[in-house]
Amino acid sequence: MDRRAIRTDLALEERERIQPEEGEVTGVKMDACEEGPDVCVTRVRILDGTGARAMGKPEGTYLTLESARMAKEDEGYHRDISEIFAGKLRELLPEGWNSLLVAGLGNHSVTSDSLGPRVVDNLWITRHIEKQGKMVSGIVPGVMAQTGMESAEIIKGIVRETGPDVVIAIDALAARSVRRLGTTIQLSDTGIQPGSGVGNHRNRLNAETLGVPVIAVGVPTVVSAAAIVYDTIDILAAALEGNQETRGLSETIRAMESQEQYQLIQELLLPRLGPMFVTPKDIDAVVKRLSFTISEGMNMAFFA
Amino acid sequence: MDRRAIRTDLALEERERIQPEEGEVTGVKMDACEEGPDVCVTRVRILDGTGARAMGKPEGTYLTLESARMAKEDEGYHRDISEIFAGKLRELLPEGWNSLLVAGLGNHSVTSDSLGPRVVDNLWITRHIEKQGKMVSGIVPGVMAQTGMESAEIIKGIVRETGPDVVIAIDALAARSVRRLGTTIQLSDTGIQPGSGVGNHRNRLNAETLGVPVIAVGVPTVVSAAAIVYDTIDILAAALEGNQETRGLSETIRAMESQEQYQLIQELLLPRLGPMFVTPKDIDAVVKRLSFTISEGMNMAFFA
Amino acid sequence: MDRRAIRTDLALEERERIQPEEGEVTGVKMDACEEGPDVCVTRVRILDGTGARAMGKPEGTYLTLESARMAKEDEGYHRDISEIFAGKLRELLPEGWNSLLVAGLGNHSVTSDSLGPRVVDNLWITRHIEKQGKMVSGIVPGVMAQTGMESAEIIKGIVRETGPDVVIAIDALAARSVRRLGTTIQLSDTGIQPGSGVGNHRNRLNAETLGVPVIAVGVPTVVSAAAIVYDTIDILAAALEGNQETRGLSETIRAMESQEQYQLIQELLLPRLGPMFVTPKDIDAVVKRLSFTISEGMNMAFFA
Amino acid sequence: MDRRAIRTDLALEERERIQPEEGEVTGVKMDACEEGPDVCVTRVRILDGTGARAMGKPEGTYLTLESARMAKEDEGYHRDISEIFAGKLRELLPEGWNSLLVAGLGNHSVTSDSLGPRVVDNLWITRHIEKQGKMVSGIVPGVMAQTGMESAEIIKGIVRETGPDVVIAIDALAARSVRRLGTTIQLSDTGIQPGSGVGNHRNRLNAETLGVPVIAVGVPTVVSAAAIVYDTIDILAAALEGNQETRGLSETIRAMESQEQYQLIQELLLPRLGPMFVTPKDIDAVVKRLSFTISEGMNMAFFA
Repeated sequence: MDRRAIRTDLALEERERIQPEEGEVTGVKMDACEEGPDVCVTRVRILDGTGARAMGKPEGTYLTLESARMAKEDEGYHRDISEIFAGKLRELLPEGWNSLLVAGLGNHSVTSDSLGPRVVDNLWITRHIEKQGKMVSGIVPGVMAQTGMESAEIIKGIVRETGPDVVIAIDALAARSVRRLGTTIQLSDTGIQPGSGVGNHRNRLNAETLGVPVIAVGVPTVVSAAAIVYDTIDILAAALEGNQETRGLSETIRAMESQEQYQLIQELLLPRLGPMFVTPKDIDAVVKRLSFTISEGMNMAFFA
Repeated sequence: MDRRAIRTDLALEERERIQPEEGEVTGVKMDACEEGPDVCVTRVRILDGTGARAMGKPEGTYLTLESARMAKEDEGYHRDISEIFAGKLRELLPEGWNSLLVAGLGNHSVTSDSLGPRVVDNLWITRHIEKQGKMVSGIVPGVMAQTGMESAEIIKGIVRETGPDVVIAIDALAARSVRRLGTTIQLSDTGIQPGSGVGNHRNRLNAETLGVPVIAVGVPTVVSAAAIVYDTIDILAAALEGNQETRGLSETIRAMESQEQYQLIQELLLPRLGPMFVTPKDIDAVVKRLSFTISEGMNMAFFA
Repeated sequence: MDRRAIRTDLALEERERIQPEEGEVTGVKMDACEEGPDVCVTRVRILDGTGARAMGKPEGTYLTLESARMAKEDEGYHRDISEIFAGKLRELLPEGWNSLLVAGLGNHSVTSDSLGPRVVDNLWITRHIEKQGKMVSGIVPGVMAQTGMESAEIIKGIVRETGPDVVIAIDALAARSVRRLGTTIQLSDTGIQPGSGVGNHRNRLNAETLGVPVIAVGVPTVVSAAAIVYDTIDILAAALEGNQETRGLSETIRAMESQEQYQLIQELLLPRLGPMFVTPKDIDAVVKRLSFTISEGMNMAFFA
Repeated sequence: MDRRAIRTDLALEERERIQPEEGEVTGVKMDACEEGPDVCVTRVRILDGTGARAMGKPEGTYLTLESARMAKEDEGYHRDISEIFAGKLRELLPEGWNSLLVAGLGNHSVTSDSLGPRVVDNLWITRHIEKQGKMVSGIVPGVMAQTGMESAEIIKGIVRETGPDVVIAIDALAARSVRRLGTTIQLSDTGIQPGSGVGNHRNRLNAETLGVPVIAVGVPTVVSAAAIVYDTIDILAAALEGNQETRGLSETIRAMESQEQYQLIQELLLPRLGPMFVTPKDIDAVVKRLSFTISEGMNMAFFA
C-alpha cells in the first residue's frame, strides 16, 4: 500500500514515513526532539533538491511542537506553549523587520478550517496606529468558493500594495495520523505549497511569488478519510502476520498494490471518500484553544 | 464484522443492514420508494417490540426523502424538496394543533452539527405575535459542553412552562454510509433517542418524557470514522473473493471477528477513531442549503 | 423636562437624578464611592417601599463598578477589574451554594445586545462533569423575536427542571448618559425587572418568580435616542442662562414642559426616536472586552 | 444651525438640505420620483464642479430607491425590490463586462455595519468556475481596526492582481434622518468617498484610484448622534415660533450659531456624541432582510 497517496502537511510525518527507524535520509536532517516541559520540539531541515524530492516538500526548516496536553483545556499549559511558540517564531522571523502581514487562511464557516481566521481575530493589529515600531497588519482572505479567487492572488495584491517586510501564513493542516490532530503546531520558513491546508490551496505562497519571506504556521485539524483505509489495511496485515496460520495472508494483502483486485479499493472506496475528511468531535474546542495559543504567541513574538 | 457497532440514525440504513435483499423483517414494514420528480420517499414502519429490538429503534413511522440532487446548489430543486418535505411533515403533525415548539438541537460552533440551530434561525416565529392561529416558537438549547445540561432537560422545562401542542426536534444525524451525507432527510414520529445525533444526546425526548407528541427531523452530516474501517474490510474481502487464488483469504478475513487477531483492530484502531467523525469538505454549503430547505418546508407546513 | 421618561437600568443614575447634590433620599442609602486603583465602587441600597417608588426599582442592593479605563484595551487593567468584580459577586452569592445557572440574556445578532450570550460562551461550565463541588450551568435563551417566548419563561422552565441554588442573569443595559457606556458594571441582588435591558424584557426574573435568588449583572451599552433630545434641551437652557440677555429664554425653555408647544417634541421627535438607540461606534470592541472581563470574573468568583 | 456638519451619505438628503422646496440647484439635476408599485426611485445628477462643491459629493449619478415597506418583513415585496434594484444596477454597469469584483465593506462584528459582508456571503461567486461568461468574485476586506489596512488598499491590491472590468462596493451608510434607516437603497457610479460609510473610510475608491469603474451601493443603517441634537433644536425653535409669545425666542435660538453660548453645545455635547451613532433596535432584522434583497438583486443583474 503506498501511503504516499495520503497527503500530510507535516514534514515530520513525511520524514517518519520515509525512514521510520533510526537512520539518515539523503538531503534531510532531523534533529532529535528537544524535550521541554511537556512539549517536544523537532527540527526537520530539507537541505537540497534530493531531500525536497524525497519529502515532496520544498527546501527549508520545519519546526514541530508536539504535546498530547495541547488538546486539553489547561490555561497555564497553553500559556507555556505560547511562549515556546513565540521563541521558535522569533527564530524564523527576519532580523530587523518593521512591518508584517499575518494572513489567516481557511474557511471561517467550517470549524476544522477556521484556525487561520480565528488567529487573526485575536492579534494585536497596529499598522494603522504605529508610525514606527512594529507595524502588524492582518487579513482573512476567505476561500475560493466564497471569493472566486485564490488566497494567493488576494495576498499577492495586498503585499504589493502595502509592502510588508514579511508575511506569516497561518492555516489548518491535514495530517496522516489522527494522533496529531490538535496536538501539533508546525512552523516553517518555506511558505505555503499548492495542495496544502484543509482547503487545498492551488497556488504557491512563498518568497519567490511574494517577494518577501513567508513563514507558514499550521495546526493539523483533519486527516483525509482515505488515511483510515490505509490504516485499516496495515493493521489488518499486521494482525494476520501475528498468527502462524495467517502469516501468508498478510503478505498477500501487503502485496495487493500490484494486483488488479486492489483496484476495487481504488475505484470503489477512495472516490467516495475523496471529498471527505476525518476530524475530532470536539473540533470547536480544539480550534478555539489553539488559535488563542497561537495568537497569544504571535503577540509575544512581535511585541514582547 | 459486526456493523451493528456502527451507529446509524437512519431507520432506512438499519433496515437495509438486516435484510439487504427483498424480503420481510418481522415487525418491520418498508414501503417501496415512491418515486417523485428526482426524489425518492421511503416509509419504514416499526410495528411492534420485535421490530424495535431488531432495528434498535422505537416503534413508529420513519419517512426518508433521498436524492443525490439535494447535495447540489439548485434553488428551484430545493424549493421542490421543501414542498415535498412540507407535505410529509403535515402527515406527521397532530390534527388541529395550535401551538408548536421547534427545538434546534446540536452545536452552532461545529459546522456539521449546526443544522438544528440554523433551521430555527430561519423559521417564522409567531407565538409572541399571534394570539390565535398557529403559534410557533423555537429554541436552540445548545450542547452539554456549552450549557452543562442535557438538551432534553432544557426542552422539558420549556415545554412544561409554555405548553405547546407538539414539539419538532431537528438535528444533524450520523449515517453509516458516506453516500447519505447531505442527500437525505429523515422524519419520524418517534422523537429523539439516547445516543442519536452528531452530539450523542443522552436523554430521550419523546411523547412519554415530554407529554406531547415529538416529531424528529434530521439530515445525516457525518459518518463515524469507524464505519470506514468496516467498509475497507468489506471491500478488501470482496476484492479477494473475486479472484480464484485469493478466495480463501476472503473467507479468512470475513471470519476474523471470532479470532483473537481481530482484537488488534478493536484495540488499536477503533479507540483512536472513536472520538472522530467523517464529514464532507463542503459541509458549510451542505448545511446552509439543507437548513434553508427544511426551514422553508416547515414554514410551508405550518402556515400555507 | 421630565427625564424620568428616559429609562435607565442603573440605580446609580436614578439616584443621581433624584438628588444630584449631597443629601439623603428617603428609603435609599448610597455609600460614598470606594476608591480602588482606578476604579470606583458605589453601593446604592433601596431600603423600603418608599425608596423603591422614588427610584422606580425594587428593594435591594445595587453595586456599581465605574472606570473610564474599562473602555480601553489594557489586559492588565481588565484582569484587575475581573478580580474586583469577582469579590463583589461573591458578596451577593448565597453562602454554601452548590449549583448555579448563568443566563446570558440578549440578542447575539445585535452587537450592543450581545453581552449576555458572549459571557456564557466564555464561562467554565461544569455541571455535566462535576458530581460534587461547584456545578455551573449556562443558558442563552435568545430574544422573543427569535424564540416567540419571553426569556423569563425559558429560564423558569429550566430552573424548575434542573433546580440550581441561584441564578445569575447577565444582560446589556440602557443608561441615561453616554458617559456610562462601556465604563460601568452593575451587580444587584434584585433580579431583572420588566422593561430593563437593551431588549426590554417584559417579565420579571427574581426570587419570587423563580423560587431561588437571582443576581443581575449588567453593562450599559446603549442610551435611548430620546435621552439625546433631553440632553440637548438642558444644555441649550444652560447656554442661554449663562448670558444676561438670554436668561429669560432659558426659563421659558425649562418651563416648556407645561406648555402645549412642548407637545411638538413629544409628538414629532420622540415617536420617530422611540425605536432607536445610541451606541458607540466601537461597540464590538467594548462588548468583546467587557464580556471577557466579566466571564473571567465569574470564573474566579465560582472556582477560585 | 449648520446641519452641514452632520454627514449624510445620501445625495438625496444633501440635495433636499440645499433647496428643500421646488427649484433648481446650479450644477445639480434631480428627476421627479418615478412612482413604482410601492417604491419611489429618485435620480440626482451632479453635473459639474459647482454642483459637486454645493453637494460635497463628486460628479455622477445617484439613484435612490425608497419605500417604508422595505423595513417590513414581506418576502414578495422584497422580491419586487430586488428586481427594481437589478434593473437600476444594470443601468450603471458598463456594457459588455465579463469580470466583476463585489467588495463588501464594513465590519461583520457590528450589526449596523455588516451589510456589505452579508451581501457578499449570499452572492453567486463564479470566477473560479466560469472560464467564460460572467465571472463574479467577492471580497470582504474587513475594517482597519481588524486589518491595520484601509479597505481601499486591500481592494486596490486585489484589483491589480485579478483585473476585474468593474468593481461594486457595497456598504452601510449614514443618513441624516432616522426615517431613511432601512427604507432606502442608494446606487451611484461615483465610487466611495473618504469619510463615507458607517466606518468612515479614509481613502477614495473610484475609477481614478482603481483604474476601473466603481459602482457604490449602500443602505443607511445609522444616523450620527449629533443629528439628533440638531433635530431637537430645529423642533424646539419651530415649537417656540408657533406661539405668539415665544416667537422671539425662536429667532434667538435659530441665531445662536453665531453666538458664543452656542459653543456650549459644540463643546459639551457634540464631543461626547461624536463617537456615537443612532440605530434601530431591530437592526439585525433590517440588515438581514436588506442584504438578502440586494444580493438577490445582484444575482439577477449579473446572471438573469
